[in-house]
Parts: sequence; structure tokens; C-alpha cells
Amino acid sequence: MPGEKEEFIQTMRNNNDNLNNVIFGIWPIVEALREAKPFNKIMIQKGNTSEELEEIYALAKEQNVPIQSVPPQKLARITRKNHQGVIGYTSPIEFLDIEEVLTGIFESGETPFIVCLDKITDVRNFGAICRTAEAAGVNAILIPEKEAAQIGADAIKTSAGAIFNLKICRSKAFIKAVQYIKDSGVKIVCCTEKSSQHYKEGKYDGPIALVMGSEDNGVSPSIIQISDYNAMIPMKGKTGSLNVSVAAGILLYEMSEQH
Amino acid sequence: MPGEKEEFIQTMRNNNDNLNNVIFGIWPIVEALREAKPFNKIMIQKGNTSEELEEIYALAKEQNVPIQSVPPQKLARITRKNHQGVIGYTSPIEFLDIEEVLTGIFESGETPFIVCLDKITDVRNFGAICRTAEAAGVNAILIPEKEAAQIGADAIKTSAGAIFNLKICRSKAFIKAVQYIKDSGVKIVCCTEKSSQHYKEGKYDGPIALVMGSEDNGVSPSIIQISDYNAMIPMKGKTGSLNVSVAAGILLYEMSEQH
Repeated sequence: MPGEKEEFIQTMRNNNDNLNNVIFGIWPIVEALREAKPFNKIMIQKGNTSEELEEIYALAKEQNVPIQSVPPQKLARITRKNHQGVIGYTSPIEFLDIEEVLTGIFESGETPFIVCLDKITDVRNFGAICRTAEAAGVNAILIPEKEAAQIGADAIKTSAGAIFNLKICRSKAFIKAVQYIKDSGVKIVCCTEKSSQHYKEGKYDGPIALVMGSEDNGVSPSIIQISDYNAMIPMKGKTGSLNVSVAAGILLYEMSEQH
Repeated sequence: MPGEKEEFIQTMRNNNDNLNNVIFGIWPIVEALREAKPFNKIMIQKGNTSEELEEIYALAKEQNVPIQSVPPQKLARITRKNHQGVIGYTSPIEFLDIEEVLTGIFESGETPFIVCLDKITDVRNFGAICRTAEAAGVNAILIPEKEAAQIGADAIKTSAGAIFNLKICRSKAFIKAVQYIKDSGVKIVCCTEKSSQHYKEGKYDGPIALVMGSEDNGVSPSIIQISDYNAMIPMKGKTGSLNVSVAAGILLYEMSEQH
């Protein structure tokens, strides 16, 4: 099985995905932040204590842009030009605030139908889930600031453009945001194998939010704790698991029927 | 949007996928065919009229191995070594005969639950469908000889190994094979947007086969004609379509519940 080659291809893919939305150098990034241009993230070289970075830190904090501290080699792989220790990935979409979006949904008389993605970092799975969510009538997607899929050309393509028709909310405190959704009167449903509650037996009418976790780790235990229903999709074969975007599709369509 | 780059990556992916299962040169291929090694396909250079090819043609026909006539440039892209105008891609699995498999299912007292993939050539979608199918309790997958996904490392990986736990049948005459399945007493259900029959309203108990078409073209009209139920998945958003592996997941789990 190809290890190194696969990694190379992944890097190619990522670069391909990101080439169009890379900004580097201190002043270009400061400028973009001042204009409130949306960012997926900003990477700063470890140990870089330049005073000029302070404005980047301040603006990024204000605008909830994730900052990553990375070794110089990582930046060198992205560009050979003079990046001054800072590279940012802009986003083709604006990230919204879940509190504002949820208020807006209630005020408009719609019934909230939300998808929360807990550490789903795979770009294709993210895109595929957005595509299905939009077709199933979901109004908003919630993602965390860290451990989220990078939103770029690849995600847009896999979503068949659906990303542009959804409200994508990003939260620094993901678990608190899910708690906020619950406190607003929205039923929390987690997709998990560690449950005996068959997904077909759930009641999904009224305001509802589906939480999907990564294929490796599932939904975070602290979210399972505040969950109103833990939906289990039964497995008959030997493989014992589904692709996360397929599992999301099965649940979203079951919910959509009752919504 | 990246055109050439994407194509390059696709070629990289394909090569990556295939490097381990390429055989070239006349005698190595004849030897492999004599040993009945399973092949995805064999490519022969256009205009190559070498007498030695006759045995390849004869054995390939006998074993239902697809032969493709290709320009020399295509072969040159795969290997620079002396391929003598013939390159074959072996398969990690054996392709079975749908008539034999169906008889076996009936004889063992199981209820047939089959998936027929009509021109689904995308390796990842193929793999993802196999993964879901196995988890939903499907016993066999039917694919055509031509316009099918190449079965290699990438398909196995996306299927999470499920390909090895399913009976994969390959047919030269795909539509006739679907007709054969129907004539054996199996209900044919096609997934299509061009129907007003809601997928939730179908009856899926008893012997059943789901036909999925490609995202571009859907299920072939001649299969729709012999279909017993045309299942439509409703779309609420603007995107208006689902990924084929997600659509298959929604239908397979709906069927699995009644199976």
C-alpha cells in the first residue's frame, strides 16, 4: 500500500485547493484582516516574536480567526517567497455567529434544522455533508474553529456549490455553542454507534440539531452527555461502520421527513 | 478553478492506485490469463496485429475480461518499459457470474438483496457504495464490463475493505443481467429524480435489487422501462442533487429496514 505517495498526492490536493486563497507576509495579512476578509486560518512561525505580529494577533482574536503556531518547514512547503513567518488561508465564504443565525431562524418563523460537525476535518466529507444537508432542508452548519475542514475549492466542488446556500457558523467554543443551541429549545441528536436507540425510532419534529463526529473518534463525550437522542444506525456486515457523509445522509433524510 | 492540475492529480491517483497491479508484455499477460488471474481490463495498442495477440483475445473472451484498444501514447504514460503493446490491470478480487450467485443465494435460503451499478465509474463512489451495501446487508453487487470503476487499492480503501466481503458480479450484457435478475423473481427498484414515487412509499420486502446510475446520466432508460419501482428522493434546497453514494445509502437503509 502506498504511504509516501499518498501523502504526496494529499499535499498536491491541498496545495491545489489552497493556491487561490493564500496570503502571506505581515502587511498583506494585516490589510486583509482590517478589511475583515474571512480566513480559514492564519499560520505563524514558531518563535516569531516580531512586534508587528501583535496587530495580527489582536485582529484575529477580534474576528475569531484561528491562529496556528507552526515550524518554519511547514511554511516553506507552502511558498518559497518571502512570507515573513506568516501565511494565511482566506475563505470563500463568511463565517457567521451561531447565536445570531439561530435568532434569525426563529424570528423568520422557520423551524431550526442544524448540523453540528464535531472535528470533521476531511474536506470531501465536509463538502458531501453540506450537499446533502442543503438538499434535506438544513438551515445552518456549525463547525469548530480548530479541527474543522478547510473551506476552499475542493470543499466547494464536493458540495456541488451547496456551501454557498447554507449558513456556515464557526465557534471558538464548540461544545458551549451546542449547549447554547440546546438551551434555545432545539433538540440535540447525536449519531453514535454506542447507543441502542435505533435511528428510525427517534422523534425529529420541531427544532432539531444533528451532531456528527469524526469516523475515528465519534461525537465528543461531553456532547453525548447533553444529547437528547443518541441515534444508532444498525450494521449487518463485517465492516461495521459507514462513511460519515453517508451516515449523515441517512439521518438527515430520516429527520427531513418529520421536519 | 484548476483544470490541468486536477487532471494531473487524477492521473497521479490512478497510477498510485494501479502501480501494484499492472502486468505488461505479451507473455506475462498470456501466463496470467492461463492461470485465470482476474483482470480489471487489458489495453492493446491500436493497430497492433501481432499474431501472438490472438491467444490473449481468445482467453480474455473466454474469461469475460474487457479489452480496450488504445493509442500508443496511453500505454507510454503507464510504463516506459517494453510493454509490447499490451498492458493489463489485474484485480484484487475475482469477478463472479450473477446467474450462479443468484442461484446460490436462493439455494442457501437467503433473500436476495442486490445492488446494480449502471456506469458508476468513480472509484471513490464505488468504494463508498460497497461499504454501505455491506453494512446494510446486501449480498451481491452487479457491475458492467465496460464503464465500471477500476477495482484497486483506492476502491478497497474507500470501501473500508467491504469489497472483500461482497460478491462482486461482472456482466458483459448489463441490461440483460438486470432483466435476468427480474425474471428470477427479484423486484427492481431504480433510484431516479424523474419519478413522483417517493422512496419512503416503496415496498421493499422480499427479493430486491436497487439500480443506481451515474450522477451525470442516471439509470439507463431501458432499465427504467423494466423497473418495478422508481424511487425518488425529494430535494428541498437549490443544489438539487445528491452524491450517488449518499443517495445509495439513503435508499439501502430504507430497504434494509424492510428486508
